[in-house]
Amino acid sequence: MSSNKGKYDCISLGHGSGGIMTRDLLDQIIFKTFSNPYLDKKHDGSIVPFEGELAISTDSFVVSPIFFKGGNIGSLAVHGTVNDVAMCGAIPKYLSLSFIVEEGLSMNDFQRIVNSIKTASETSGTIIITGDTKVVERGKGDKIFINTTGFGLKHPKARISSEHIETGDKILVSGNIAQHGMAIMSEREGLQFESDIYSDSTNVNFLVSSLLDSFGDAIKLMRDPTRGGLASVLCEIAETDQLGVQIHERALPIDIQVSAACEILGLDPLFVAGEGIFLAFVKGNQSDAVLEAMMNDEKGKFAACIGEITNDHPGKVVMNSSIGGKRLVTPLIGEQLPRIC
Amino acid sequence: MSSNKGKYDCISLGHGSGGIMTRDLLDQIIFKTFSNPYLDKKHDGSIVPFEGELAISTDSFVVSPIFFKGGNIGSLAVHGTVNDVAMCGAIPKYLSLSFIVEEGLSMNDFQRIVNSIKTASETSGTIIITGDTKVVERGKGDKIFINTTGFGLKHPKARISSEHIETGDKILVSGNIAQHGMAIMSEREGLQFESDIYSDSTNVNFLVSSLLDSFGDAIKLMRDPTRGGLASVLCEIAETDQLGVQIHERALPIDIQVSAACEILGLDPLFVAGEGIFLAFVKGNQSDAVLEAMMNDEKGKFAACIGEITNDHPGKVVMNSSIGGKRLVTPLIGEQLPRIC
Repeated sequence: MSSNKGKYDCISLGHGSGGIMTRDLLDQIIFKTFSNPYLDKKHDGSIVPFEGELAISTDSFVVSPIFFKGGNIGSLAVHGTVNDVAMCGAIPKYLSLSFIVEEGLSMNDFQRIVNSIKTASETSGTIIITGDTKVVERGKGDKIFINTTGFGLKHPKARISSEHIETGDKILVSGNIAQHGMAIMSEREGLQFESDIYSDSTNVNFLVSSLLDSFGDAIKLMRDPTRGGLASVLCEIAETDQLGVQIHERALPIDIQVSAACEILGLDPLFVAGEGIFLAFVKGNQSDAVLEAMMNDEKGKFAACIGEITNDHPGKVVMNSSIGGKRLVTPLIGEQLPRIC
Repeated sequence: MSSNKGKYDCISLGHGSGGIMTRDLLDQIIFKTFSNPYLDKKHDGSIVPFEGELAISTDSFVVSPIFFKGGNIGSLAVHGTVNDVAMCGAIPKYLSLSFIVEEGLSMNDFQRIVNSIKTASETSGTIIITGDTKVVERGKGDKIFINTTGFGLKHPKARISSEHIETGDKILVSGNIAQHGMAIMSEREGLQFESDIYSDSTNVNFLVSSLLDSFGDAIKLMRDPTRGGLASVLCEIAETDQLGVQIHERALPIDIQVSAACEILGLDPLFVAGEGIFLAFVKGNQSDAVLEAMMNDEKGKFAACIGEITNDHPGKVVMNSSIGGKRLVTPLIGEQLPRIC
């Protein structure tokens, strides 16, 4: 009635059948790796006790290549969703996990990705409580796509809403920008830079939580600049809430290698994704204290105050450039870096 | 700053960029179709009040073809997840919705799928509260894959656990088996049957909820026989809990056209998916009443009692065949019908 894992070097359509091969794959890789009281019930779903305000965020990850310096699609799928839940002002607790695997993915690669998911979920204090695995034919997918959906409990002190943002509020970023996007670019294109660029993919939920503990409603909005980068997030907020956003090029924290790589490739780092940083819109008179708290945390050590909300130019993002001019930052129309996450 | 929908006949990579094209797609299709107070905040996630036991289930849908008689990948993605939440003994409330679209999908097809999601979620009493849209290059996906994750509130009277199943419990199925799988097969292979076979894809959550209202813990376990069909579910339960499962071929409800189509194609309907039916393991002395209640509901009108739990053959599923013999039902190893859901 049972087959052994060693029989299969790679994922085949049978692993998505709902039959013995599916069960073996689940038993030998998924349940074995993630074992916990919820998942161990092997039901169609899980039931967990919950009381309070429930934060939910979902993301499908299609990054290519699936392995890159600083992580892989598995760890990214955890960090991305955990951080999105944190951006809601919530404490991530549970994750669902769903795979769409292309026939032919090696079992070793699958196990390696699953192991990274395990490590990333443990590190972020979350557990995988339910999941799904589908397999598609060769050429109908691209190795592996992962959906994670995260559930968290709203932090009791969080009062996150762009409606609270007002003139004089400061804009902080928790770390170097454009790191993840440039790591993927350099992998993908086989580009050789003098030094290696690593993705910043990591969970920021504990940093967020400690900031909310200390500063509560002084933190008015948080967003992580993933797809489309810092500029896309700022433009969206400026436009949606008709806020005047002013940033200072000189203040933007960026690794010198990332900056050089952007120049070589003709990419504007303002539009390049990070996966371990976030923007915080903070009450002006508390921004120094929030910045200091960020910088005292390993995950916020490169944090900087990059701008503020102004009465001028509502709905627009304006950057004071390093050489003294002003530049209107406009959102990209289409694609600069496809499949970055 | 904004483009109009008419400019794009189909989805392109730019629609997954996080830039203006993404925002336009979301504004003009997603937010417009699903508008509700949670989604309208356009944040990375949503926060909803919740108190009680939270049921969570996730599924990625990769069915091919994406349109079929009786539904499409959109309605299926709602029904599948809503039903999985219901199988936990819970009342589905919220859904997350995540797309992986292959470049080139026509905007009309996308809108049609989104409309079906809208209708299916309304019909099942759920709302879409957060989502995600990714685009992959041509040949790296297959038109569209959809992940839905569902959240529900445990029904106060539900005590769903296979541990409660005991000898003498009856096994009910809420409707005709193998309907969805054969609908997909006939579409996929361009098979011409004398009459059309429609998928049974539908939400069963209200039927489940009313049964729980009336019968509470007499309903010990519910499972929907999707991938792998009735036989796979029964074998899994028999094996996991070392229960003796006995079913009666003559009692299995099946549409005569579906049965004929299975014969023509050499498929065993026991292994073919349904998407609008469920199995219920019910306390023996209440099974007649539960069956009657099922049959009085439009979605349960073809319900039948198909077997019982026996002391004989623990861990095995045995079928008394129509012609008087006994057959051991064993799970499939691999794939009978790939990409059925």
